[in-house]
Amino acid sequence: MASLSQLIDDRELAFQLYEVLGVESLLSRPRFAEHSRQTFDAALEASAKIALNVFQPHHRKADLEEPHFVNGEVQVIPETAEAIRAFAESGLPAAGNDYAQGGMQLPWTVAQACYVHFHAANVATFAYCFLTIAAANLIERFGTDDQKRRFMEPLLDGRALGTMCLSEPQVGSSLGDITTRATPLPNGTYRLRGTKMWISGGEHTMTSNIIHLVLAKIDGAPPGVKGISLFIAPRKRLDANGQPGEKNGITLVGLNHKMGYRGTVNTVLNLGESEDCIGELVGEPHQGLPYIFHMMNEARVVVGMSAAALGMAGYRVSLEYARARLQGRTPDAKSSPRQTPIINHADVRRLLLEQKTYAEGALSLGLYCAFLLDEQKTSPDEEQRKRSTLLLDILTPIMKAWTADWCLRANYNAIQVLGGAGYTRDHPVEQFYRDNRLNPIHEGTNGIQAIDLVGRKISIDNGSAFAELVVAMRNDLQKAAGVAELTKHAASLAQAIELLERTTAPLAAASKGKSAGVDNATLYLDFLGHIVIAWVWLRQAAAAVSCSKKNPALAEFCAGKQHAADFFFQRELPSVMYKAGILMSGDDLCSSMRDEWF
Amino acid sequence: MASLSQLIDDRELAFQLYEVLGVESLLSRPRFAEHSRQTFDAALEASAKIALNVFQPHHRKADLEEPHFVNGEVQVIPETAEAIRAFAESGLPAAGNDYAQGGMQLPWTVAQACYVHFHAANVATFAYCFLTIAAANLIERFGTDDQKRRFMEPLLDGRALGTMCLSEPQVGSSLGDITTRATPLPNGTYRLRGTKMWISGGEHTMTSNIIHLVLAKIDGAPPGVKGISLFIAPRKRLDANGQPGEKNGITLVGLNHKMGYRGTVNTVLNLGESEDCIGELVGEPHQGLPYIFHMMNEARVVVGMSAAALGMAGYRVSLEYARARLQGRTPDAKSSPRQTPIINHADVRRLLLEQKTYAEGALSLGLYCAFLLDEQKTSPDEEQRKRSTLLLDILTPIMKAWTADWCLRANYNAIQVLGGAGYTRDHPVEQFYRDNRLNPIHEGTNGIQAIDLVGRKISIDNGSAFAELVVAMRNDLQKAAGVAELTKHAASLAQAIELLERTTAPLAAASKGKSAGVDNATLYLDFLGHIVIAWVWLRQAAAAVSCSKKNPALAEFCAGKQHAADFFFQRELPSVMYKAGILMSGDDLCSSMRDEWF
Repeated sequence: MASLSQLIDDRELAFQLYEVLGVESLLSRPRFAEHSRQTFDAALEASAKIALNVFQPHHRKADLEEPHFVNGEVQVIPETAEAIRAFAESGLPAAGNDYAQGGMQLPWTVAQACYVHFHAANVATFAYCFLTIAAANLIERFGTDDQKRRFMEPLLDGRALGTMCLSEPQVGSSLGDITTRATPLPNGTYRLRGTKMWISGGEHTMTSNIIHLVLAKIDGAPPGVKGISLFIAPRKRLDANGQPGEKNGITLVGLNHKMGYRGTVNTVLNLGESEDCIGELVGEPHQGLPYIFHMMNEARVVVGMSAAALGMAGYRVSLEYARARLQGRTPDAKSSPRQTPIINHADVRRLLLEQKTYAEGALSLGLYCAFLLDEQKTSPDEEQRKRSTLLLDILTPIMKAWTADWCLRANYNAIQVLGGAGYTRDHPVEQFYRDNRLNPIHEGTNGIQAIDLVGRKISIDNGSAFAELVVAMRNDLQKAAGVAELTKHAASLAQAIELLERTTAPLAAASKGKSAGVDNATLYLDFLGHIVIAWVWLRQAAAAVSCSKKNPALAEFCAGKQHAADFFFQRELPSVMYKAGILMSGDDLCSSMRDEWF
Repeated sequence: MASLSQLIDDRELAFQLYEVLGVESLLSRPRFAEHSRQTFDAALEASAKIALNVFQPHHRKADLEEPHFVNGEVQVIPETAEAIRAFAESGLPAAGNDYAQGGMQLPWTVAQACYVHFHAANVATFAYCFLTIAAANLIERFGTDDQKRRFMEPLLDGRALGTMCLSEPQVGSSLGDITTRATPLPNGTYRLRGTKMWISGGEHTMTSNIIHLVLAKIDGAPPGVKGISLFIAPRKRLDANGQPGEKNGITLVGLNHKMGYRGTVNTVLNLGESEDCIGELVGEPHQGLPYIFHMMNEARVVVGMSAAALGMAGYRVSLEYARARLQGRTPDAKSSPRQTPIINHADVRRLLLEQKTYAEGALSLGLYCAFLLDEQKTSPDEEQRKRSTLLLDILTPIMKAWTADWCLRANYNAIQVLGGAGYTRDHPVEQFYRDNRLNPIHEGTNGIQAIDLVGRKISIDNGSAFAELVVAMRNDLQKAAGVAELTKHAASLAQAIELLERTTAPLAAASKGKSAGVDNATLYLDFLGHIVIAWVWLRQAAAAVSCSKKNPALAEFCAGKQHAADFFFQRELPSVMYKAGILMSGDDLCSSMRDEWF
């Protein structure tokens, strides 16, 4: 069994926040006036401690002892509830919320950095928490003050956990086809009827209530996505004092048993089958889809963050193993009587370097996305707010899908470093790999992300999101061009951006309404993803160059960053060339394949 | 739960055997004189039936109910033993053996095609069988007549199962460092002492005996790999009548619990700790490594075949799902009231086409490798035998490692087609993915394969294995160049081969004794692997062109083959360009990374 050690390097988070993003610049905003680097660091430190002490120890147990029925109730191991309680008591669920709501009013960037510790330590337990944070944010944004008091506050202070009830058995990706109905009642509430599928955290008794956010169609609503409304339906209805009282008509129909993420109970729920399920409308009728997409876009970044955190965790475990495990000899010492630590084998270093570049690249992009959200919300400059919104729009599918795929690959490498041992349940890496395998699926499959990118994001607002991305990348190029250590990378990236521009224009045109446009959507996402991650590595390398001058104690850490950047630029970025070739060829091999030929 | 249907398409195996390989050419060899296409087909049909009826039904159960201790004995679900018995009773363990040994004397190519059904149906149960076949082949090749009678025959007729005891807790990849000792006894046998790790099938009571093949060092043996000898150590010693009698001193120390392949009991064994473990030497002392490599090379092809079979199985399950599952609308029918089968989405076709090209490419290469083995053993032409040996030498690491990696990726795609459902244990694809994850690890990790390829195979016999490969590819190019449907692919492959030659020469030189040579070994294996698989697809496309003319009933099947070849040539082969660029740059980023920089 691997010994318990912190899975996320404190230096890494500090480097990303202070050296790469310069998150201290946010301290000048009125919203963050009471903060300082000290308060940020205190939140990070508290997070690391709770994650290590309360989340990590039951990582394996939660996997082995899945939630199951006992006397008709869902039983979850007690450690999960304890961890969720500790998280709530720390105040971290409301890290980003207003002081007035009992929050810490931290930048979202810092909150996300704190959460990295929890994703890495126990993603399945933390899933309850991040769903709850997402639900609270949704009510905060679109709910009434009364709804915030009755539903958001319990989510933030630990009295309740939240869920998202979107999918149904016949509907996953195609939300316009949901059939859950909402019938208005005289008192202004609604009676909900339907079946919801894949609901994480859908049933348990770990908290005194569960707040479900439910998509349904009001009787007589327009067809398709324009008829979707958003409702709050608690597991237990609130009594006159706002306390959980009698049960609402939400019945557990079954549990889904998954390959990973086993600690998170995943349910099929029936609403209003035998007893009434009463829900409250959130915001306006038929506006459910834009509301849920507000949440979904944040959730997609969070999915990417969890993938990055699992990538980081696997990297750390396999690095420690590679330093300790003796096996074989290097080519220049073949007759040595003693075996060498496997970290000295070139191919093991490759396995580690790939993990480092994928996971730290993903982490850096995720924190950048969080930073854009802070800019969007708090920048005094309207243009800057608009730019941040556009950038976040186009980066979100990449943060979700590229990160999920490549950090899964990082976990593949982590297993490979451990060899046969990595394939056993004695080490956590096989569990990271199984847990991470969900990330390319949930919150919109990676294929959906690619179609969103090609079919919508590259052309929205006359292509201005894409244009902003190119401007942002070129800004960093200009800064890098004058730094000796970076000129070569800057030139490579400049070339890749030219290729990107030439590739994107015809694709954006072709994607309008025809199959051909989406034929190569996934290839395009991967292509753009690698360019974006190269850019992110250029930013990291630039920060490393200046940081190692300021702080000699970090010289080796920074040398590692520069070497990893070299690795990504020399071994990964070149793959964009051949992908551009395919993209520009107008290849329609997917849509021209016929069903009967398979 | 997916309904039970045959996971391997009969048309596919027939196409590979008769159209691509022309396996009927072997019928002219005296060894196969009593065979015909009818006897081949009968063996294939029997295999399909047993696999479907006896192996497949407990695929999930064997995963859920792992082998475990009951009263000090290893308990395996009864279905596993029943399946192994049915396999033995069919005579298939001795498919390739002489009639005189009770075998079917089938070509190895046909035997491997039969086994594909079992790998696909239940790889963990079939693992007991293929380990047993490998053990029997090893005794057949290097054992005495007496050893064949006492140990090989029970392995072939179902009285015993076999294992390979190579690894030890401190030794996986570096076999020269094993510490298991063998002390000669006056009667010519040896007393074995040591601990063996990762032993699949190491302990159970499904058969009346287990025949372990054990690597150990005879007292006073030379150090390193030159001191390794091979022994037979049965679980129960044979009595005077050759029947299993008293227990040999082989103690089960523990079970390994794995991510997949859970139906195969995996053990840590102690030899000679409390009671004597008596072994018999196989062949000459200190020749254990070449003997075991004879077996290992075949086993590596079999690992690749199992990866290919799992790739095929996932492809079939996800194809059936894609045809049945309704979700969303195609871009040209966005306002249709009815959802469309997801096979009509371009990105789902991509997921299927990738699976098809990886898995069928791997299968085709594996059967080609088996065919080379038949040529090596039965060709009347000495030059042809020599050529086959060299080709098999260089293709083995590719068949093992490329196939393991890319068919795992195929299984990734299979899950992705099913979405959330694919991530649950209600469908077999997540299990294929977990099972397949072992293949890049066992029988020499993929990194070891890459080092074998770059450090040894491309330069053995003055580069003649590599030269034979190039000749074999160019032969097929010439044939294809005159066929209108193939000229474009032939030109692409010709270009790739030129690139291959330019890349290989300096790499072969650099790999001699220095770290730099192995820095890019994995990249090279992937590079060469894609070229080899493109070649294999050219061969399949050529067979499809002529087959569809001969047999109009197969026109659609053949059109699918041609389309898949187009797909591999247009979307996969171009990746070799950028990899060649990195390989030729002499990049040493792996070995120049320092431990303290991680």
